[in-house]
Amino acid sequence: MTAKPVNLTEALASFTDVYSPRIVARMNDYDVRVAHTRGEHVWHTHADTDEFFLVLDGRFDIALRDADGHEHTVVLYRGDTFVVPRGTEHKPSSPGGSILMFEPSGTLSTGDVPDGAIPAHVDRTAGHELE
Amino acid sequence: MTAKPVNLTEALASFTDVYSPRIVARMNDYDVRVAHTRGEHVWHTHADTDEFFLVLDGRFDIALRDADGHEHTVVLYRGDTFVVPRGTEHKPSSPGGSILMFEPSGTLSTGDVPDGAIPAHVDRTAGHELE
Repeated sequence: MTAKPVNLTEALASFTDVYSPRIVARMNDYDVRVAHTRGEHVWHTHADTDEFFLVLDGRFDIALRDADGHEHTVVLYRGDTFVVPRGTEHKPSSPGGSILMFEPSGTLSTGDVPDGAIPAHVDRTAGHELE
Repeated sequence: MTAKPVNLTEALASFTDVYSPRIVARMNDYDVRVAHTRGEHVWHTHADTDEFFLVLDGRFDIALRDADGHEHTVVLYRGDTFVVPRGTEHKPSSPGGSILMFEPSGTLSTGDVPDGAIPAHVDRTAGHELE
């Protein structure tokens, strides 16, 4: 028994909320998730895992803060891939777009949030099932 | 020190050989690889890992053989994702296209080939570096 193919365009068309990842595939103990992006995400860290991003459409920025507190932003467009290393504080933002993510199952979308304040438009989730 | 973004279109434009994956990103102990596809791959199995495919362009078919020896083929187009479960004998083929794969670093492109016969146009590799 094998799972059926999932088309990313159809998956993204099945929901509209931003920063609320859907799980499109599972392989080993990892998830492949997709999300719509718009607005500011929140500064957070994943202490135990890297996080892979592929921009499917639009633009997606990732601000990164190094151990010294210096910040820089990586600007990504369709087809760009980027890995945020584990333990690196980061904050996504986007004028609008969609992304694919690869990360261990159970990884929370907001990781560890330094000050605990998560905006209402950002979903704290380990990913939702596709419907 | 973080890695730079890698654009998938540029990565694919940097080489032309088919069935010879390039590693575009590493996250944890996994690779993200891209490959051009054309012609018949070879029946093989990955005993210890699932394998994730995303079709970036063109068409990519995966023939699957179940434990009873029955075969069926999954036909994939741009934007389609599919996971081949560990231990499942499979053979990709394509009239032309390109794919993205997630798999543990070190996974061989041809896994375990039952009869050991690998066509000349299929590269047995754990992925090459981008140049």
